Amino acid sequence: MDMTQYITDLAQAARKAAGVLACTTGEIRDKALLACAAALREASDDIQAANTKDLAGADELGLTDAMTKRLVLNDAKVEGMAVALADIAAQVDPVGKTITAYNRPNGLRLEKRRVPIGVIGIVFESRPNVTSDAAGLCLKSGNACILRGGKEAINSNLAIAAAIKRGLAAACLPAEAVTVLETTDRAAVSAMATAEGLIDLIIPRGGHGLIRAVMEAASIPVIKHLDGICHVYVHAEADLDMAEAIAVNAKCEYPAVCNAMETLLVDAAVAETFLPRVAAALKDAGVELRGGDRCRAIIPDMGKATEDDWATEYLDLVLSIRVVDDIAAAVEHINTYGSMHTDAIVTRSIAAAEQFITNVDASSVMVNASTRWADGGRYGLGAEIGISTDKLHARGPMGAEDLTSTKWIVTGQGHVVE
Amino acid sequence: MDMTQYITDLAQAARKAAGVLACTTGEIRDKALLACAAALREASDDIQAANTKDLAGADELGLTDAMTKRLVLNDAKVEGMAVALADIAAQVDPVGKTITAYNRPNGLRLEKRRVPIGVIGIVFESRPNVTSDAAGLCLKSGNACILRGGKEAINSNLAIAAAIKRGLAAACLPAEAVTVLETTDRAAVSAMATAEGLIDLIIPRGGHGLIRAVMEAASIPVIKHLDGICHVYVHAEADLDMAEAIAVNAKCEYPAVCNAMETLLVDAAVAETFLPRVAAALKDAGVELRGGDRCRAIIPDMGKATEDDWATEYLDLVLSIRVVDDIAAAVEHINTYGSMHTDAIVTRSIAAAEQFITNVDASSVMVNASTRWADGGRYGLGAEIGISTDKLHARGPMGAEDLTSTKWIVTGQGHVVE
Repeated sequence: MDMTQYITDLAQAARKAAGVLACTTGEIRDKALLACAAALREASDDIQAANTKDLAGADELGLTDAMTKRLVLNDAKVEGMAVALADIAAQVDPVGKTITAYNRPNGLRLEKRRVPIGVIGIVFESRPNVTSDAAGLCLKSGNACILRGGKEAINSNLAIAAAIKRGLAAACLPAEAVTVLETTDRAAVSAMATAEGLIDLIIPRGGHGLIRAVMEAASIPVIKHLDGICHVYVHAEADLDMAEAIAVNAKCEYPAVCNAMETLLVDAAVAETFLPRVAAALKDAGVELRGGDRCRAIIPDMGKATEDDWATEYLDLVLSIRVVDDIAAAVEHINTYGSMHTDAIVTRSIAAAEQFITNVDASSVMVNASTRWADGGRYGLGAEIGISTDKLHARGPMGAEDLTSTKWIVTGQGHVVE
Repeated sequence: MDMTQYITDLAQAARKAAGVLACTTGEIRDKALLACAAALREASDDIQAANTKDLAGADELGLTDAMTKRLVLNDAKVEGMAVALADIAAQVDPVGKTITAYNRPNGLRLEKRRVPIGVIGIVFESRPNVTSDAAGLCLKSGNACILRGGKEAINSNLAIAAAIKRGLAAACLPAEAVTVLETTDRAAVSAMATAEGLIDLIIPRGGHGLIRAVMEAASIPVIKHLDGICHVYVHAEADLDMAEAIAVNAKCEYPAVCNAMETLLVDAAVAETFLPRVAAALKDAGVELRGGDRCRAIIPDMGKATEDDWATEYLDLVLSIRVVDDIAAAVEHINTYGSMHTDAIVTRSIAAAEQFITNVDASSVMVNASTRWADGGRYGLGAEIGISTDKLHARGPMGAEDLTSTKWIVTGQGHVVE
């Protein structure tokens, strides 16, 4: 298959569909979202049958337990996908929203308005519900999308896409508004990343290899959804009960996801008090602990954390722990080893919280809350296209509004420049 | 010179300066801007002397008249640069601005706040005042910048940078907050475009060759400032006096800039009435006209416009003219040949204006106003870093606020995810 031609053809069709979407009202797009939700529910058995095929191949593809867990679809997960589409439909339409409007002294009227971006390419792995969430958010924001899921989920993704296309048809919208690639050839990713003038944005979500491949190939804008090396820092003035609950939750509630904690930083002032109790609680929850030297001086019974550990996203019940001198040392550790995703401080001190908020270079900074909250749904965005670890255009959990561009509208009465 | 090492060293120093800037108040940054303005005024003679050296080399570099005009600095232009810095200082601080803030039903408090991006690389040609404007906007928004101007303006740019560094010193800010490369080697551009983790964004402004080189080399985010193939469409229901004034202004007031009109589209309904008068007015102003077939059927006395003409940014007193059937044909021409920069409609009809606004895929859409208004200063942004022809992050005239990223701040009282 000539991948460049294949992507060009799909993208040209998507571009036409984007032209149609750009002229729709929010009401029509919301009806389409509800029709897609209904179609997903109707197709639940088919989707789960396709998912079973994917799961049967998981071992052969060498998926880890964490990856396989993310691949599984069941009644609840399909229903969750449908509910997410309905949630997206219930949101305010981001398209046409006025960001700012004012008159200039000379009477010229300026307005900056949100408009769809056009065609968005999304490259992802593992979780098939991304197909539905991404399609829904693109549809909400008036964009056509081209989705390229992983090899491990190809059957699930195509079954979900088929249902969504039935929903689009029910709302009289073009099927090409949502396209799932039928190939998982990596060459398709490069072709997407260089489809200048056809695809406006490419969003890679997944492992380093995939994201690096997109970055290196790309001549169109990229918003990366890289890993989450998230930290919880227990400050000298922390409520230690709260700190323990947050640490256990951030590590154990769902370790396979990007907003789970990977490193616990404990202020030296409370290390002797706090470390024994949090270590016991984490071990009870089945977590393997790896400590820095100062940590192991207090709790000798744990493995040694290396430089690699500080920079590792375990996505599993493994945690590195480091004792730090103060908030400045905690910030330095986070800005050195973190991934600008989500980092938390537990403290009673306003000054410490402000210092942490200002100095930690992360997309989400949590004060007295678990890193696990970093999520578009939990932020009230309806669903999320992912969590941007970039600083441009969108940072952190991305909802439908993050999938819009803007347009200046300038109205005069014959105004010319002197 | 090892360009990668040279850029790495500069960018690491800029990164440290960015860390200092991120902790400054808006008041300190504004004082620095005013100090830079004073330093520019004091150094006006030195800057103009440096500019004279550059102008002496213009012929040898084969600059066109338009390019040379953009290169010239005089008392008024240096004063204009100082005034622009003062205007930027007078604006509201974009850093720390809350974009949205709300409580979730569970009591979790969410806030999305503007933060500096970090280190911004800007690559540009010709106009030396870009050095001052870009440095000012980056400083206002708490970013360090690395500026690489064109070979033709290297002496002017370094003289401006020297003045700005004196202004930074007067405000006790690090000199590395603003860096102008001392080399104009193209390899430096590639090194900037691949400085991952050191430079957060690269903004190329200039010719296609330069921008393509940045795009192809880049592994960091790029916001392009490509050319302006701007259109004025004279609708069937236009006020023809207004249409003539706008057409002449958009073409002639300053033809060497990106927001000048390059193609005039005239609705067939008014072509026979309007073309003779506008052609006469444009010829009086010294404009060379090139028409499509239907245009030349009405005014035989003009050259023939080819496919190339529709896609050409003349930046000179040359204009292509085409007669179109209706607003849909005008929109199709613009979306096919335009550069998504700035396009205008002249009409009395609300419906026509709305259709044009919605369907033209440009960063600025003008209704009954000259394309020449598209400018950060004229939009009230104080100055502009340029006019983005991209759709991501920032589109159209970019001011200081467009040089910020965002950060989510999530505050709980021990909130964990169940």
